[in-house]
Amino acid sequence: MRIILRITNKIILFATFLGLAFSADQPKSLKATKTWVDKKGPIIIKDFVKLLSVPNVASDKVSIRKNAEYISSLFEKRNFEMQLLELDGANPIIFGELKTPGAKRTLCFYVHYDGQPVNESKWTHGPFEPILYDGPIDDGGKPIAIPKNRNNIDPEWRLYARSAGDDKAPIITILNAIDALQSSKIGITSNIKLFFEGEEEAGSTNLKAHLSKHRDLLDDIDIWLFCDGPMHQSRQPQLVFGVRGVTGMEITVYGATRSLHSGHYGNWAPVPGQSISELISSMKDVNGNVLVSGFYDTVEPLSEFERLELSKIPDVDEQLKKELGLVYTEGRSINERLLLPSLTIKGLSSGNVGKKARNVIPNSATAAIGVRLVKGNDPEDMLDKIEAHIKSQGFHIVYNAPDLDTRQNYPKIVKVDRSGSGYIASRTSMEDPNAKSIINAVKEYVGDDLILMPSLGGSLPLYLFTDYLKKPAIIVPIANHDNNQHAPNENLRIANLWYGIDLMGVIMTMPN
Amino acid sequence: MRIILRITNKIILFATFLGLAFSADQPKSLKATKTWVDKKGPIIIKDFVKLLSVPNVASDKVSIRKNAEYISSLFEKRNFEMQLLELDGANPIIFGELKTPGAKRTLCFYVHYDGQPVNESKWTHGPFEPILYDGPIDDGGKPIAIPKNRNNIDPEWRLYARSAGDDKAPIITILNAIDALQSSKIGITSNIKLFFEGEEEAGSTNLKAHLSKHRDLLDDIDIWLFCDGPMHQSRQPQLVFGVRGVTGMEITVYGATRSLHSGHYGNWAPVPGQSISELISSMKDVNGNVLVSGFYDTVEPLSEFERLELSKIPDVDEQLKKELGLVYTEGRSINERLLLPSLTIKGLSSGNVGKKARNVIPNSATAAIGVRLVKGNDPEDMLDKIEAHIKSQGFHIVYNAPDLDTRQNYPKIVKVDRSGSGYIASRTSMEDPNAKSIINAVKEYVGDDLILMPSLGGSLPLYLFTDYLKKPAIIVPIANHDNNQHAPNENLRIANLWYGIDLMGVIMTMPN
Repeated sequence: MRIILRITNKIILFATFLGLAFSADQPKSLKATKTWVDKKGPIIIKDFVKLLSVPNVASDKVSIRKNAEYISSLFEKRNFEMQLLELDGANPIIFGELKTPGAKRTLCFYVHYDGQPVNESKWTHGPFEPILYDGPIDDGGKPIAIPKNRNNIDPEWRLYARSAGDDKAPIITILNAIDALQSSKIGITSNIKLFFEGEEEAGSTNLKAHLSKHRDLLDDIDIWLFCDGPMHQSRQPQLVFGVRGVTGMEITVYGATRSLHSGHYGNWAPVPGQSISELISSMKDVNGNVLVSGFYDTVEPLSEFERLELSKIPDVDEQLKKELGLVYTEGRSINERLLLPSLTIKGLSSGNVGKKARNVIPNSATAAIGVRLVKGNDPEDMLDKIEAHIKSQGFHIVYNAPDLDTRQNYPKIVKVDRSGSGYIASRTSMEDPNAKSIINAVKEYVGDDLILMPSLGGSLPLYLFTDYLKKPAIIVPIANHDNNQHAPNENLRIANLWYGIDLMGVIMTMPN
Repeated sequence: MRIILRITNKIILFATFLGLAFSADQPKSLKATKTWVDKKGPIIIKDFVKLLSVPNVASDKVSIRKNAEYISSLFEKRNFEMQLLELDGANPIIFGELKTPGAKRTLCFYVHYDGQPVNESKWTHGPFEPILYDGPIDDGGKPIAIPKNRNNIDPEWRLYARSAGDDKAPIITILNAIDALQSSKIGITSNIKLFFEGEEEAGSTNLKAHLSKHRDLLDDIDIWLFCDGPMHQSRQPQLVFGVRGVTGMEITVYGATRSLHSGHYGNWAPVPGQSISELISSMKDVNGNVLVSGFYDTVEPLSEFERLELSKIPDVDEQLKKELGLVYTEGRSINERLLLPSLTIKGLSSGNVGKKARNVIPNSATAAIGVRLVKGNDPEDMLDKIEAHIKSQGFHIVYNAPDLDTRQNYPKIVKVDRSGSGYIASRTSMEDPNAKSIINAVKEYVGDDLILMPSLGGSLPLYLFTDYLKKPAIIVPIANHDNNQHAPNENLRIANLWYGIDLMGVIMTMPN
């Protein structure tokens, strides 16, 4: 919250801009979408309420199919050829196609129509009973009725419901952009495909199989628009050209075969909490640089253009540090952090602390190491490098708990557990021709405020599009950054709903 | 178990010796006690069964008083002047006195008559239903009746019950030593006092107050015989001249005010698991030497005689390492470990590991540090030195969770929690005249096998006797080392029962 208040001036300007501003040098679709929103505001919100009222937790197969059928029907009404792509045991992909005569380009909108599981008791109201509020609940916002009068809608209002931000917002914005363009008789300039996943929040476990099975439907796609995730925390609009990959391992070091009395054995028995600390300590220097040999060797650098764009991203370091109570950070700016792989200790455990602490030397200590990857890093190769580092510190590596014989033969033993899943990072070049078209179109709409972010901090299996299907993919966020995604009281700010409709209109009408 | 098997030859010799051997150059009391045991064996065991049948968990006030009264009555029958020393809210001390005309020395036997709490479900039979077994239960021992014939008792049999080893064995051995001496008309050579505590296993929280309140009864004691704890794991008899002191602290290092997404913040946010590892790592060198400045400065060295005795203690290092699955140890022998204070990591915690691990950078990491002290170390001074070390590593120390203002002003913060209790080590010089008399008397009995151990590894508030009352105190163990003390199926090996009777006889008749 605090950070937002500190950049209020910018927000107000931008909020105003998002909802209301309009000038002659902007794309022609904008007039259509703004007029549409202006006229149909209450109806758009009501339609969104209807869409959000269908429960959509991935494991609820009956409701998921209701969503799929309902959403398909909405697009069918807009002349899309729709089908549900099926795969045994998987939720269907809502697939749609709208052909544009003479179009030289095919855009595909990726959206996921399933939402995070809900813990109803933590919601102010039912997660599938969408309610409009006159501001964020956390800031004292109150529930209000959807106004009948189209002029009375405040863009700072918020609609609360599961998936309001993540990830049904893009669906309602695409639908309304199409309506707006049709109503103003403005032609769409690209072939449009829709690929709406129904189990993203359940881990996208069938995504690759879907892409593989239905590859013939996807081969002519020139660029994927990955409509998910929140906007930049400065509230400036952004396009994101990649995600970090992710991997990790758990390491366990061993002391004696059993916990030992710290009085009888202290000064003699090896102390696992000490050994693991020494090992972890060897992995980074005091500035947070990873000392694992070769850790940074496979990083694919940004282009000059991408570096330039990166340098323009608002520097929120000092604000973030203040908000998070930090003086020291690991020596890279919050934006630069995305350009290198990271190694962090996610968990650490040996014996007990607090009231459960006992006077023992525990028999083992475990650390969960998280590794985020950037373009160029291979997950297995990175873990191999960490293993090589562990060996260089004098440890013998095992992959199962060591037996007595192994313990009696090696002074220092680490068990490595690499069973966690992992995948590569993804990055689409900002200089890809189709990406460039999108950048230019969106820039025409939002101006120099547009942030071109080389990568999200988080990880998504975007590589399936960029490296498996070998197509460019850009993340196009719509939701407010404080949409409580994955949490109770998820919401979408109305200004972001309007922004999404404008944005979809701009993208669908960009020069051929 | 394994270690015992490896020294079988010695055991058999010694076991034989304990139960049966007898030669002319041994103290004259031995003939009396051995004859007594030989004649009364079954009755001694039956009397012990009776003593062990009275439940004695410290919190069970009714049973505790039954114990106190019953034990008092047993000593009254042997002409002791008995009284129960009372203190509000505390279990009584069983105090007794037997004056010896012409004696120049007063010995006081410390014993505790309370036992560890029991988890009955984990016992093979009721903890207060003592049963004789023909061997250790773990090795297939079977329950047997107490034989009527005194010659049929195997010294390897074991009596199972709570407090069989810890700590009612000394009571039954003192009683029988007195009976044996009286029956052979051998005079006791010292004044004898008894000081039996009733809440040792509950933390001896009232011990100091008892000692203070009843100090006039204790002032003429020349030496305390602290009858508790097991014999050396080599099964050789030992006298122990001290215990380690104990203290410790918990340290918590901080990251951001909340856990952060490891993708969004990895490479930027400080990682508490990393910081605490670096801090812990700075506290010891690769050989396990503590690098905290001054950590070893206040250690009072052993005398030449004590060093010599230490060098004679059986070296069980290689056996222990094999048993515990260790190749590397912290560079000191298992005996030498007792001469220096130790620093061990008892617990380590940050975020989660295993299935609960999440892709976050946790907001804190905590380590529980255990410190064992030797003679000369002051607990507060040692913790001060650790704090100074922490400061030398660039940390700002707080004693409560840091507020935002503190976090915004110091790059590295450690919260120190010194609230754990602690106390100093205790050591009685082996060259104290009364200690010397005891050493000589016991040596006459057991020969060069006698181990003179400068300190137990564990900690007991023995300093109350040596540093508060300012009297020498020697620990005189009787129980077998594998008596399952504090655990289910506690037991006493019959050979140790016989040994205890001999030993008490020897001590009570040593030259004036």
